[in-house]
Amino acid sequence: MFTKYLQDVFKVPLVIQLTDDEKFMWKNLSVEETRRLAHENAKDIIACGFDISRTFIFSNFYYVGVPFYENMVMIGKHVPYKKVVGIFGFTGEDHIGKVSFPPVQAAPSFPTSFPHLFPGGLNPRCFIACAIYQDPYFRMTRDVAPQLGYNKPSFIESIFFPALQGEGGKMGSSDPNSAIFVLDTAKEIKDKINKFSFSGGKDTIENQRKYGADLEVDIPVKYFGFFLDDDDELEHIRTEYKAERMLTGEVKQRLIHVLTEVVERHRKARAAVTDKMVDAFMAVRPLPNMFS
Amino acid sequence: MFTKYLQDVFKVPLVIQLTDDEKFMWKNLSVEETRRLAHENAKDIIACGFDISRTFIFSNFYYVGVPFYENMVMIGKHVPYKKVVGIFGFTGEDHIGKVSFPPVQAAPSFPTSFPHLFPGGLNPRCFIACAIYQDPYFRMTRDVAPQLGYNKPSFIESIFFPALQGEGGKMGSSDPNSAIFVLDTAKEIKDKINKFSFSGGKDTIENQRKYGADLEVDIPVKYFGFFLDDDDELEHIRTEYKAERMLTGEVKQRLIHVLTEVVERHRKARAAVTDKMVDAFMAVRPLPNMFS
Repeated sequence: MFTKYLQDVFKVPLVIQLTDDEKFMWKNLSVEETRRLAHENAKDIIACGFDISRTFIFSNFYYVGVPFYENMVMIGKHVPYKKVVGIFGFTGEDHIGKVSFPPVQAAPSFPTSFPHLFPGGLNPRCFIACAIYQDPYFRMTRDVAPQLGYNKPSFIESIFFPALQGEGGKMGSSDPNSAIFVLDTAKEIKDKINKFSFSGGKDTIENQRKYGADLEVDIPVKYFGFFLDDDDELEHIRTEYKAERMLTGEVKQRLIHVLTEVVERHRKARAAVTDKMVDAFMAVRPLPNMFS
Repeated sequence: MFTKYLQDVFKVPLVIQLTDDEKFMWKNLSVEETRRLAHENAKDIIACGFDISRTFIFSNFYYVGVPFYENMVMIGKHVPYKKVVGIFGFTGEDHIGKVSFPPVQAAPSFPTSFPHLFPGGLNPRCFIACAIYQDPYFRMTRDVAPQLGYNKPSFIESIFFPALQGEGGKMGSSDPNSAIFVLDTAKEIKDKINKFSFSGGKDTIENQRKYGADLEVDIPVKYFGFFLDDDDELEHIRTEYKAERMLTGEVKQRLIHVLTEVVERHRKARAAVTDKMVDAFMAVRPLPNMFS
């Protein structure tokens, strides 16, 4: 009544937040029930006589809108803080944005997050292809799934590329010489491989001929493992290099060729991608050929 | 490339999440910049050759959609966990849904959360009418506002109604006799006030006539403070009751009358509120008479 008085006197826009998500998190109610309560609550508020031409009432579930948010909240409700401390090592200094993030990462594992793709109870199992460092997120997701009545997602994890400098090094955009980037030019690739890729070859041609290369630490050989489609050639290089019949320089030349081809192919494909195509892929829409 | 292989072989729908919000929270980037990076990132992904009829790419900021969510994330980024522990007393046992909630409560304080109301940089200051227990949320909001380049909201806080049983008691839906509810019938109101409202009157008529009522603890008098519009009548009741010329029974009769009227008025007004009206108030729309 006081708020209505203020609106009447000052003629101002009024926004009223109904925290259905808060009720859901603090009480033992279903999302549907808290939505229903918010609707009933809105009736009580409207009955106070607010001016519809100056008043916007919203509930968090309704306004934030997408069921994706409902899943975020539902996941968050089932993960105690001490658990994310155990998983991610958060401390008191970390901001709560970080603490809020794991449910965001987890939500796409559940088909209900995408009603435009999986309407009417269509409930396929989710399979996640991810990098190994995302493992904690999806382990957490698997723990939570049964509590929400959802299927657990399964996942397959990729290992990291080693840095050009060798297994111990860290690959990252902060050191441009630590990795080959998808937008590197042919010359950049050549220079980086020649100068920076750690070799298992020996220091002199004599030693190389004598001892062969140490394939366990050789970065070009490891990169072939990722990028050389032809398994026979890969085996050939490994044998020849190991058995001292191939030198570091030759191996690097071959890698430069392979990587340049991969990057060139990507560069061309990427140049053909228009903003319109991005919009088309990101449009919230049904997928016509989903399972065909 | 591995993911594309899986899609090609198994002919399955593929959902790709771009975590622009994660980048924003972990790195020193603006929301716009992380959105731009997500767009660029989408180009690299599309260039891998995914089938548009089976692939949905989304970024969290884009798909969760409303700028409200951006503000949630921005607020969360500026509140360390130890601060919400200090404010709300969270422990390790509390779920991270609770830890994520303060930014949700804070977001409506900022006009950018409502682009349909305040487009194009319209930036009114926010005034919040709230109950006193929400104070910590909005203090936190005021602390964060300057860091986001936003105006601090101001607020006015209402005190609680005391429980019918008296100041010490707790009013809540768990005890139906602790409060008058807006949907109580006239008979329920009458019974509750007569039986349960704590009186400052004395135990016998003789003592009452002798000592008068203790207005400091008398619940009916306190309720008049909230519900009796006529200040002169309020003063009259206080004087007469205190000066032993009015008895507890008479005061309670008057309160029953006042409350029944308030509740009846609300019941009628509420009955006139249709689901359609709720939808109209909650529709995401401009408000035509906002400031007129």
